[in-house]
Amino acid sequence: MEAYWELEGRFKRLALVEEAQAILGWDWATMMPEGSADARADQLAELSIVAHERLLDPRLEDLLNEAEAVDDQLDDWQAVNLSEMRRLWLDASALSTPLVEALSKAKSACELMWRTARSENNFAALLPTFQDVVALVREKSQARAAAFSLDPYDALLDQYEPGMRAAQIDPVFDDLTDYLPDFTDQVIDHQQTTSPALSFKKPFPVAKQRKLNEHLMRVVGFSFEYGRLDESHHPFSGGTPDDLRITTRYDETDFTSSLMAVLHETGHALYDRGLPKTWQRQPVGAALGMSIHESQSLLIEMQVCRSAEFIRSIIPLIMDVFGTGDPALTEGNLLRHVQCVKRNSIRVEADEVTYPAHIILRYQLEKSIISEELRPRDLPDAWREGMLEFMKADPVDDRAGCLQDIHWYGGDFGYFPTYTMGALSAAQMFEAARRVDPSILPSIERCDFRPLYDWLSQNVHSLGRYLTVSELIKRATGKKLDTTAFKTHLRQRYLPN
Amino acid sequence: MEAYWELEGRFKRLALVEEAQAILGWDWATMMPEGSADARADQLAELSIVAHERLLDPRLEDLLNEAEAVDDQLDDWQAVNLSEMRRLWLDASALSTPLVEALSKAKSACELMWRTARSENNFAALLPTFQDVVALVREKSQARAAAFSLDPYDALLDQYEPGMRAAQIDPVFDDLTDYLPDFTDQVIDHQQTTSPALSFKKPFPVAKQRKLNEHLMRVVGFSFEYGRLDESHHPFSGGTPDDLRITTRYDETDFTSSLMAVLHETGHALYDRGLPKTWQRQPVGAALGMSIHESQSLLIEMQVCRSAEFIRSIIPLIMDVFGTGDPALTEGNLLRHVQCVKRNSIRVEADEVTYPAHIILRYQLEKSIISEELRPRDLPDAWREGMLEFMKADPVDDRAGCLQDIHWYGGDFGYFPTYTMGALSAAQMFEAARRVDPSILPSIERCDFRPLYDWLSQNVHSLGRYLTVSELIKRATGKKLDTTAFKTHLRQRYLPN
Repeated sequence: MEAYWELEGRFKRLALVEEAQAILGWDWATMMPEGSADARADQLAELSIVAHERLLDPRLEDLLNEAEAVDDQLDDWQAVNLSEMRRLWLDASALSTPLVEALSKAKSACELMWRTARSENNFAALLPTFQDVVALVREKSQARAAAFSLDPYDALLDQYEPGMRAAQIDPVFDDLTDYLPDFTDQVIDHQQTTSPALSFKKPFPVAKQRKLNEHLMRVVGFSFEYGRLDESHHPFSGGTPDDLRITTRYDETDFTSSLMAVLHETGHALYDRGLPKTWQRQPVGAALGMSIHESQSLLIEMQVCRSAEFIRSIIPLIMDVFGTGDPALTEGNLLRHVQCVKRNSIRVEADEVTYPAHIILRYQLEKSIISEELRPRDLPDAWREGMLEFMKADPVDDRAGCLQDIHWYGGDFGYFPTYTMGALSAAQMFEAARRVDPSILPSIERCDFRPLYDWLSQNVHSLGRYLTVSELIKRATGKKLDTTAFKTHLRQRYLPN
Repeated sequence: MEAYWELEGRFKRLALVEEAQAILGWDWATMMPEGSADARADQLAELSIVAHERLLDPRLEDLLNEAEAVDDQLDDWQAVNLSEMRRLWLDASALSTPLVEALSKAKSACELMWRTARSENNFAALLPTFQDVVALVREKSQARAAAFSLDPYDALLDQYEPGMRAAQIDPVFDDLTDYLPDFTDQVIDHQQTTSPALSFKKPFPVAKQRKLNEHLMRVVGFSFEYGRLDESHHPFSGGTPDDLRITTRYDETDFTSSLMAVLHETGHALYDRGLPKTWQRQPVGAALGMSIHESQSLLIEMQVCRSAEFIRSIIPLIMDVFGTGDPALTEGNLLRHVQCVKRNSIRVEADEVTYPAHIILRYQLEKSIISEELRPRDLPDAWREGMLEFMKADPVDDRAGCLQDIHWYGGDFGYFPTYTMGALSAAQMFEAARRVDPSILPSIERCDFRPLYDWLSQNVHSLGRYLTVSELIKRATGKKLDTTAFKTHLRQRYLPN
């Protein structure tokens, strides 16, 4: 057991360095003065080097071998912890140092260039750098494929959600592709027959919005003893389980945009906060992966907080914060605001009905890019064709097309599917939770999230990485992930019953 | 030269880790939610371990030996850089790991206990833990004394200001001890003959104070492209040369307290920002030590910003920010506020006339503690006797006596003298600067700090650690440090001419 205990000590120390990185990353986005961006990049890179060196210390590999040789002495959680350690080691050692460095430089260069290319709608200017990134990501996918015995695209997926495979995604996405186009037409037709949402009359001062947001974060279960709410260009949830840093941005003409973003990030933060304390800073104590993380944010935001029950429950609070003078601040009208469905070529502005189409397009394109069926130069045309097919929308230019998201230009291929897999998981989990504990929804109507929180804690948060994603979903919901609950949810919310 | 270049690379990487620590330290004091204090302490400790391990890597000692063997190939700055590297290595290797760990634990325990002991006025409860700290600090002083061939107390001084020795401090402090008691009586008598300061009528809203502070930080030379102003329990200047983090606290009944604190910290920040860019992240590119750092903050705050010239120059701005309705907002009355002299038993509330007495008392007591002439248990009585002697004040209890400062309970012996050495240096530098460039003071009266800044940059900031403290003061002011300029300054400011 000695080797195992020493490994626990080493991984704890590794986690502390990563926690430092997380706080510095939050500071970058919220507090850092502009002039120190280069210095901060160097500081963060240095901490990455520290972590990488520690993971690839030859002594660590010896310890893994020693511990694995006597792994029958480990209890179940320790055994998973040890195999997670091996996975992290494999992950770090799969790529050669020159490849890691080349990729890191190419990604930085391409991300930087993307900012300009997007604002100038100039894909051609970005293409050479993007081709470098794609070539290196393909190389990375091959190297990870060899190390983990996976197909190249799966080897990329696996980085963001260990265990997720294209073979699981394909049937689910095919199902949505069959279902959603007609359904979306019906919803849009239906919403056009009812009266449109009234615009808000008066501006919502930022200080009041912040007060509302903080109050509802507490209602959902966030503790400000272990976290903060600040502002940044894009909302995110960062920090560490003991120091959760949520950010949002404010629109004074519409408080719901900031509120829903905050509730979304609160879902992420509750997951991190609820991870098993006894396994804190150990690999088995970490969050499972991006689709389960997204399931937690979408369950809170989409399943719960955009529901009629929740909106009804917070109307008195909204009146209290913003006053009673605005006829647009009624339950029915707020619901129209937070449940409005529109075809839109921009992903981050999409509603939950049209969101999957954005993802499925990106999923197909990125698979083709990795398999070399699609050349980077042909991306803008392929994107336009896809948007017409999936969204019946023709983006006005590449800004509203293939230049809108940073992911690929920052080297992130295999990430997009986790958004929609998360949305499906959220629907299936919320359905199962309400079945098991029928008090969940009535409690939410009384602004009491405890029953829901207890279910999430027991079935998701407190399990860390002890189960695989498939095992966790099966255990929590009684069956493997499919589209049934998601489709039922959409029908009940968006079509007349 | 290869060994030297590799050393530069290693010290750069070390500095990046220290920069990360600096930002996390700022976050601790300004942003961090209460519940994550333990986690943050662990993160900071881990980064200290990283830095310590890198400094004590056996390969680094080899490189130092190799580089020193051919140091005739180095230019002057490189040579000083190399000897600073050796000093840092000696500093890290002088103490055994068990001693470092024991001291770190004892300091943390004692600091924590001090918070309660102070609020409960209970020195006895703190004594056992304090005795542990003192015993370990004595051990440390012996170990550093052996490594650097110094007397034990000098070995502690040297940590905060390399090169500073009790033999230089003693005659200077003796001189002040002779001079200040009578002088202080005269000043207090004189101030009692003039009318007392009018109290301010209306509260000063925090937002307006912040606006005034930020404006004057810019006037003095601070760039918000490379820094911020925030709030914390105690004002400080932290961060890094590219990312200066100044903090203050606000008193709505008196804007001068926050303003003067901000100007003080701005002096520190300008020094860090002005350190030589070409030697950034190298030992020779760092700030010299605590007395020179304090000279920069006191030069800005005490020499410049509490002067009649500066107060006169900012009156229109103050009217502009706070309005014109308050009869207390006149030049004469503001001067009475920022130049008021009082005997007070609390150091951090002291003015520049009575401050040295606080320091000299602490200096004598800490020397006696290290030399074992004074036992920790006898500290409260010795403190009271000293206060009666130096300050003609009898502290009401230990809260206003030996429990008021955290320094010793946190293991910092040898730090206190740097405050007064800094005050003397500030006076001598400002006198020399005005002699060399007579436009400095008239410019300040026009809110133009450029001439002063240029002198400071050329004579202090841009030199990093290239010169020793004595060399720097000699070069900048034409003579070694003494009390003449400080006494002249006090006479001119506080007694009728």
